Amino acid sequence: MKTIHIGLLGCGNIGSGVTKLLGEMSASIRESYQYELVLKSILVRDLTKQRPEYVDTALLTADKDKVLRDPEICYVVECLGGEHPSTEWMCEALRAGKHVITANKMALALHWRELHEASEAGHATLYYEAAVGGAMPIIKILNDSLQANRIDKLTAIINGTTNYLLTRMTDEGLDYLDVLKDAQALGLAEPDPTADVEGEDAMYKLSILASLAFHQHLPVSAIEREGVTHITQDDIRNARELGYHIKLLAHATNTAEGMDAYVSPMLVPIMHPLSSVNGAFNAVFLHGHACGDMMIYGRGAGSAPTAGAMVSDLINAILQTADDQSPQKLARENEDPVPMMSDRVSAFYIRLSAQDATGVLAHVAASLSSHQIGVKALLQPVERAKEGAQITILTHPASEKSVRAAIAAFDKELVRVMNVLRVEAPVV
Amino acid sequence: MKTIHIGLLGCGNIGSGVTKLLGEMSASIRESYQYELVLKSILVRDLTKQRPEYVDTALLTADKDKVLRDPEICYVVECLGGEHPSTEWMCEALRAGKHVITANKMALALHWRELHEASEAGHATLYYEAAVGGAMPIIKILNDSLQANRIDKLTAIINGTTNYLLTRMTDEGLDYLDVLKDAQALGLAEPDPTADVEGEDAMYKLSILASLAFHQHLPVSAIEREGVTHITQDDIRNARELGYHIKLLAHATNTAEGMDAYVSPMLVPIMHPLSSVNGAFNAVFLHGHACGDMMIYGRGAGSAPTAGAMVSDLINAILQTADDQSPQKLARENEDPVPMMSDRVSAFYIRLSAQDATGVLAHVAASLSSHQIGVKALLQPVERAKEGAQITILTHPASEKSVRAAIAAFDKELVRVMNVLRVEAPVV
Repeated sequence: MKTIHIGLLGCGNIGSGVTKLLGEMSASIRESYQYELVLKSILVRDLTKQRPEYVDTALLTADKDKVLRDPEICYVVECLGGEHPSTEWMCEALRAGKHVITANKMALALHWRELHEASEAGHATLYYEAAVGGAMPIIKILNDSLQANRIDKLTAIINGTTNYLLTRMTDEGLDYLDVLKDAQALGLAEPDPTADVEGEDAMYKLSILASLAFHQHLPVSAIEREGVTHITQDDIRNARELGYHIKLLAHATNTAEGMDAYVSPMLVPIMHPLSSVNGAFNAVFLHGHACGDMMIYGRGAGSAPTAGAMVSDLINAILQTADDQSPQKLARENEDPVPMMSDRVSAFYIRLSAQDATGVLAHVAASLSSHQIGVKALLQPVERAKEGAQITILTHPASEKSVRAAIAAFDKELVRVMNVLRVEAPVV
Repeated sequence: MKTIHIGLLGCGNIGSGVTKLLGEMSASIRESYQYELVLKSILVRDLTKQRPEYVDTALLTADKDKVLRDPEICYVVECLGGEHPSTEWMCEALRAGKHVITANKMALALHWRELHEASEAGHATLYYEAAVGGAMPIIKILNDSLQANRIDKLTAIINGTTNYLLTRMTDEGLDYLDVLKDAQALGLAEPDPTADVEGEDAMYKLSILASLAFHQHLPVSAIEREGVTHITQDDIRNARELGYHIKLLAHATNTAEGMDAYVSPMLVPIMHPLSSVNGAFNAVFLHGHACGDMMIYGRGAGSAPTAGAMVSDLINAILQTADDQSPQKLARENEDPVPMMSDRVSAFYIRLSAQDATGVLAHVAASLSSHQIGVKALLQPVERAKEGAQITILTHPASEKSVRAAIAAFDKELVRVMNVLRVEAPVV
C-alpha cells in the first residue's frame, strides 16, 4: 500500500466537492488500486470562513507554499478557477514536478503553451477532464478511445447556462430577459452573465476540444463567436414551426479546405440527438472516419459532477505516474498558423420585418436567387405582425459568404433583417 | 521505435475492417506512440476465398498455431465471433501470455470466469471495448472515467437490429413482420433473427455492462428477457399518443434492495435522450452518485466502428503492457450469489381488448384499484375497434408484482390482455 499526498488549491464549490468525494471513495480506491490517498493541505483565502462539515479545517492554510513547495505533495488539484493566479500557480507546481488536476478551461484555453512548457520542464502532467463538460469524459474519449479515428467534425452544447435559458424560453414561451432574471435569482446565471451569454465560456472549451480532436492547437483567436442575447420568442416559435430547436452550439470542423470553428446559436433539427439536450445538460456530438457519429451527454457543471471528473483524473494520474509511465500530454502546439477554411456551407434561418409586405417577398427572393441561394421553407404568419409583416426564410445549404452578401444587398428601405442563424444538418 | 507483432483470428467483416484501419492509421500510430505495428498472421478458414485488396493474402493461414503459438506475436485480435472455438482459442492465447482484443460478447458473457482465469494464469489481459456498443467507449468510461462513482442505474439500447425495426415501425407505420422481411433483404437482420429479436444479444451485452458498472459479475441467468416480436402498430400508436416511443431496453439497477436486470421493450418518454436514439444507433444511459445522469451514443455495430474500437483497444493494450504496467482486469467474479431485488417499481402500459365495452372499464379499474395501482392515462379510440373495444391504460409507478397480480385477476370472459410493457421514467 503506497501513500499518496494531495494538495488542494481552493475550497469553494468545486474544492469542497473534491474533499467530500475523496472522503466517500477513499476506502473503495484503497481496495481497487492499493493506494492510500491523503489530503494534506488546502489553500484558502479566508481561514475564518465557515466550511462544510466534511472539510477538515486543520488542513486549511493561507500559504500557497504549503501546497506548492511541500516535497511530499506530488498531486495538486487546482480548484480556484479564473485566469490569475491559477495559471502561474499551476505552472509553478508543474515545473516543480507535481502533477496537476484542473477544471480551469480559461487558464487552459488562454495559456496552453505556457502550461505545456511548464509540464515539459517539470516532467509532470496536467489533467483537465473536468475543464470541458463537467462529468462527461470527453477529454479521455478524444485521447484514449478515438486514437484510431480521423475526427472531422465536432458540435457541442458546452455552456449549461445558455442551454438552460434557451430551454426555458422554448418550453415556457418566456422572453430572454425574464428567464435570465429568474436564472440569476436561482443562482443558475452569474450577476454579470457576459461570459456565458456571449459565448466566451463555450469558446474556451471549444478551443480545448478542437485542439485535442484535430491534433493541432486551435487558439481562441481563431474562433468566431456570437451569443444568445438577440434570440427572441419569434425566433424560438419560428424555429419550432419549421421543425427545429435553437441551441447555442460550439462547432469545429477539420477538412481538406482547412479548419473552421465558431460558437453561435443555431437551429437544430428536432430529431437530432443534440435537440433533446435540455436544461443545464451538456453534450458533445462528433464524427470520426471509423466511429461514425458519436455523442456523449451529461452534467456539464456542478460540484459533484466536476469533483467526480477531477477525482477520476487524480486516480488516473496516480496510476499513470506513480510508476512513472508515459503520461498524457497536452497536444503539441504547432508553430504554423492554423489553416482556416475560407468559407463555410450551411442552411440559414433569416427573419425579416417589413412595413408593407407588397413586393418585399419578390425583392428578397430575387436577391437570394441572384446569389444562388435556394429557399427551402417560408413562414409569413398573419397574427404576429407587431411591426409590419414578419417573413421567415429557411434556405437550402449555401455558401455563408453568399448568404451574407445576399442579405447585405436587401433594400433597407423595404426590409429589416431581425435575425440570421445557422442551421445544423440532420443526422443521416 | 519498438516493433509490435499482431495476430488476427478471422478475416470476415470485422477482421478485414481491422486490417484496413491498421493500414490507414499505422503512420499516425508510429508518430504518436513510437510503436511500429506489424500484422504478422491472419487465421482464416478458407485460403482461396476472395479478399478485399487491403488484405495482404501472404499473411493468411489456416493453421491456428501460426497465431496462437508464435512467440513473436504478443497481441491477438479475435474476430471470429460465436461461442466456440473462440472461447477456447482466446483462453489458449491468454494462458500463453498473449494479450487478446475481442468484440465477442457471447464468449465474454457466457465464459467470463474461464477467460478471467486464463488471463490470470498467463498474466495477460483481455480487452473488449468493441463487445458492447461498437464504437462507443462505454467499457473504458466505466473502468477509467467513473471510478469515483457509485453507479446505481444503467439503461441501454444495445441491439441495433431491434432498434432499427422499432424505428421503422414508428416512422413508417409498418407492421413488425414487414419491417423484419425488409431488414433481412437489406442484410440488417439475420436470416434467423432470434438472437436479436428475442433480446439474447442485448442480454449478453447487459451482463458485461452491469458486471463492470456494479463491480460484481452479473451472469446472464440473472437477467429476465423479453423480445419485440409481440409489439404491434397498435402499441406503437398508443405509445405515441401517450407521449412515448417503444424501445428495446437493457435495464440494470443496483440499490440497497439488491440488483435487478432485464431486457424488455419499454415505453420511453419522447423528451428522454434515449427516445431520439434511432435506427441502428446504440446508447447507454446511466446514473452515478457523483456524475448524475450521463449518456453515450454511437454506432453499435458495423465493420468500421467495431474495428475502430478494437484498434483503440490494441493501442491501449500496447501502451499499458509493452512496458508491463498494471493491466485492465475483468471484474472479479464474486462467489456469492448476486443479491437480486425481489420486486421492482415502474409505470406500466396495458393494452386490452374486449368484445363488449360495457362494464369492462369498471371491472378493470376495480381490479387495479384493489391492488393499489393508480391510472395515469387511458385511451379508448373508437376507430380502431377491430376486435371489439381497445382500451389502453398507463398506470402510475407501481409494484410490478401487484400489476401482474391485478392483470391475472382480470375476468378472461370480459377482457383479453393484448400487451403489457414497462414505462421508463423521464429525466428530471
